Amino acid sequence: MEQTPGLLQKGVRIIDLAADFRLKDVAAWQKWYGMSHSCPQLLEEAVYGLPELNRERIRRARVVGNPGCYATAVQLGFLPLIEAGLADAGHLIADAKSGVSGAGRKAEVHILFSEAADNFKAYGMSGHRHSSEILEGLAQAGGKAIGLTFVPHLTPMIRGIHATLYARLTQDADVQQVYEKRFRDEPFVDVMPPGNTPDTRSVRGANQCRIALHRPGNGDTVVVLAVIDNLVKGAAGQAVQNMNIMFDLPETQGLEALALLP
Amino acid sequence: MEQTPGLLQKGVRIIDLAADFRLKDVAAWQKWYGMSHSCPQLLEEAVYGLPELNRERIRRARVVGNPGCYATAVQLGFLPLIEAGLADAGHLIADAKSGVSGAGRKAEVHILFSEAADNFKAYGMSGHRHSSEILEGLAQAGGKAIGLTFVPHLTPMIRGIHATLYARLTQDADVQQVYEKRFRDEPFVDVMPPGNTPDTRSVRGANQCRIALHRPGNGDTVVVLAVIDNLVKGAAGQAVQNMNIMFDLPETQGLEALALLP
Amino acid sequence: MEQTPGLLQKGVRIIDLAADFRLKDVAAWQKWYGMSHSCPQLLEEAVYGLPELNRERIRRARVVGNPGCYATAVQLGFLPLIEAGLADAGHLIADAKSGVSGAGRKAEVHILFSEAADNFKAYGMSGHRHSSEILEGLAQAGGKAIGLTFVPHLTPMIRGIHATLYARLTQDADVQQVYEKRFRDEPFVDVMPPGNTPDTRSVRGANQCRIALHRPGNGDTVVVLAVIDNLVKGAAGQAVQNMNIMFDLPETQGLEALALLP
Amino acid sequence: MEQTPGLLQKGVRIIDLAADFRLKDVAAWQKWYGMSHSCPQLLEEAVYGLPELNRERIRRARVVGNPGCYATAVQLGFLPLIEAGLADAGHLIADAKSGVSGAGRKAEVHILFSEAADNFKAYGMSGHRHSSEILEGLAQAGGKAIGLTFVPHLTPMIRGIHATLYARLTQDADVQQVYEKRFRDEPFVDVMPPGNTPDTRSVRGANQCRIALHRPGNGDTVVVLAVIDNLVKGAAGQAVQNMNIMFDLPETQGLEALALLP
Repeated sequence: MEQTPGLLQKGVRIIDLAADFRLKDVAAWQKWYGMSHSCPQLLEEAVYGLPELNRERIRRARVVGNPGCYATAVQLGFLPLIEAGLADAGHLIADAKSGVSGAGRKAEVHILFSEAADNFKAYGMSGHRHSSEILEGLAQAGGKAIGLTFVPHLTPMIRGIHATLYARLTQDADVQQVYEKRFRDEPFVDVMPPGNTPDTRSVRGANQCRIALHRPGNGDTVVVLAVIDNLVKGAAGQAVQNMNIMFDLPETQGLEALALLP
Repeated sequence: MEQTPGLLQKGVRIIDLAADFRLKDVAAWQKWYGMSHSCPQLLEEAVYGLPELNRERIRRARVVGNPGCYATAVQLGFLPLIEAGLADAGHLIADAKSGVSGAGRKAEVHILFSEAADNFKAYGMSGHRHSSEILEGLAQAGGKAIGLTFVPHLTPMIRGIHATLYARLTQDADVQQVYEKRFRDEPFVDVMPPGNTPDTRSVRGANQCRIALHRPGNGDTVVVLAVIDNLVKGAAGQAVQNMNIMFDLPETQGLEALALLP
Repeated sequence: MEQTPGLLQKGVRIIDLAADFRLKDVAAWQKWYGMSHSCPQLLEEAVYGLPELNRERIRRARVVGNPGCYATAVQLGFLPLIEAGLADAGHLIADAKSGVSGAGRKAEVHILFSEAADNFKAYGMSGHRHSSEILEGLAQAGGKAIGLTFVPHLTPMIRGIHATLYARLTQDADVQQVYEKRFRDEPFVDVMPPGNTPDTRSVRGANQCRIALHRPGNGDTVVVLAVIDNLVKGAAGQAVQNMNIMFDLPETQGLEALALLP
Repeated sequence: MEQTPGLLQKGVRIIDLAADFRLKDVAAWQKWYGMSHSCPQLLEEAVYGLPELNRERIRRARVVGNPGCYATAVQLGFLPLIEAGLADAGHLIADAKSGVSGAGRKAEVHILFSEAADNFKAYGMSGHRHSSEILEGLAQAGGKAIGLTFVPHLTPMIRGIHATLYARLTQDADVQQVYEKRFRDEPFVDVMPPGNTPDTRSVRGANQCRIALHRPGNGDTVVVLAVIDNLVKGAAGQAVQNMNIMFDLPETQGLEALALLP
């Protein structure tokens, strides 16, 4: 955010991989990130960089806020339900599990091998930065405020996010069909055939969100399973996707091979 | 179940570590376990061996069905809420994560190191055996039928279950106090002080269920975090606890050291 | 080996990814693999498929025995020393560590996650099949019999072999230079600059052997660190390399991207 | 070392769990630890706290230098061979593998979960602090200088050291019997029956060194496999053992249960 105004003056278009332009709500941003925003006047203009939600606005944007990893998985998982107004948007539940690389590569004791291996725990129960992103994105998608209980967990694996999402249907619907139709033309969202479950390994290194839908006992609760690689569709891969959109490149360019170092 | 009638005739009291006496509903049992029950007449008499629910009946029982691992964590986590009638019992959600030893020590490809390591996935979406246990136990606790969405997940760790439970309050309540009071005299349930999160490692080898309560944003959704060691409080440790109760031994006898091989 | 004679008659050239054509010594083969060889007459003709040792013979071969994973790492690590006659070839030591996928994808208890995770052990102390391959290959390279102590270990990781090799110099030599020169034109062997140590992750998915040389305290013991991906340079990648050689394709064709499923 | 002289004046006996009193050679100490020793006059008096080597001197010591983890495993593994003068003491090889907790609980990037998991590498090739300890201890045991090549490796597990030791016999001997006899009365060294291999898990939490002997092909190379828990026999457990010896307590007191937090 410090450099953005100057870069814009020089005609540079920006995809922000930090979190400075993800939120519209300055107060929420300042609360989560613990500092003053240096160019709040740009927040309104900045476009939240989830292509499946904002593709056309990204195409013309000067500033794109690249989404957080949890926020990507949770929003993609809920998007068709919320857009179609099929679920109780006031009581969404997102139970998300992340590999340890989601915490970054900082030298911190809690993510040491000897602390994080062979262990599992929830964290961030008093609130997580990504909640506001999800709330803003889904409110935009559904045209009204939503309510979300978001519980992130730390899992002893290197990469990957598994979001298990719960929503209550307010009307009967063929949820499988709604999702398939919604994402039919999306190059990086894969709706699995009925009866499947995605594992995080299946998207490792890929700029892909893989989704499966379930209605246990044919009840009114829909369970959405959504997996991404937090370092690709949840970070740098999505930034490349946004760049491709902004510069009229083929959207999949540079994203068809796996983004894995040897 | 094959040996049980004969053993009972000889005056032997039985704690069944298989799953033959966990359910009252013969049809449900036969559906989940894929065979005919050989002594269904004993199911009514058999006592479900969750001490926190059935201590006095266990004390006098001839046959105790020792609970499943998931079922232990989920029931203990919901018990105070359901007994007190504070939550919408028709729409409970249990998002549970288990270490790989929960699948047993059978030689199966999906639990090989190279398959299960560095990976995370849900399974059993079409129904899991432990659901019926939970439904029966909580129905007994609350005095009415409950509705449950139960999603188990496989986590790349050896031991431990982390159940993340979601319920909607139907009236305002000091949930922390309700749980502390309910479990005050339980030797093997630990309600953590507000603001904490339990990790599975903290109960490894222990016959302990550790529980934390959260109400994100002070909304009407309660999140209960409950961890156990699936091989101890979720299996053999609980059987020892039941034996202690049945034979009027101190309930904690043999359960105060960690049940870990070197 | 059952199908090989018939296929050869039809003019098919064979790269055997089983272990049927790795050894010249029928008796050794029958001892290690516990069965009779069905076409021992082909063993003499078959070429051991380590390109760095037998490239020209592979080019013309009808039958290539693709090397074992340990055997690849150990032979590449010792090759320059043995060819140059610089070390005591009668007392080589190979301390090798393999990820769990080296044991194959069979459903066996000892490679279950709950057995192999958070644990480390040696195995095969009474002899390992790959010893004979190494003995034959290095004897060919050095023109005389060698003596080898080979100790494989199981490591709690999915892929990768780390061979730590020890040899006693019989004359002073610039070992770094000997290795750099020997492998200068090899596309899939990387001799690291002095002072480095390779990690197995650095070759994951790659058809690459990465080698570092050390002489602790400038003594007469040389330590060679050699890493490969057991599933690539130690298996299928090397088979592709052999195919490229046999069919006059560019040797690196199909081998420049990482061989990793998402 | 700063506090030691003052404490000694007050009559306090010291077991140093830092590394300040492990070496006799001040220059070596200063080289490895990168600082001046503040009380070098105490180094001669201080006793190296490996009970199996120095039990009687520990009993009377005012200052005991508690051994390093690698140094414990390597010395115990070589001790009988060196004392009996059966091996070429000038060319010992110790290939050691440690779990990540061996690096301490400092916040450092290289021991983060995402760096150390699913990976294996050697380190410390230019020399490791524990080498000097081993050289001093084994020189004392054998009555002459020894030569050692020591290569430590980082393994993706939490606790445990596996030392694979190689020595060349200078005379024929029943090595198994030599070891069994040497350690017969040692409460914390277990010589396994012939044909076994120890795994690190088998000593987790225990103040135990488990050793197996092998002579591949009945040649002149002896392979010693020695495992310990780096945090117990390799650290705090051994300190308790030393305390028991110094204060005439039963040597196994406090060391018979596993030293594992839940």
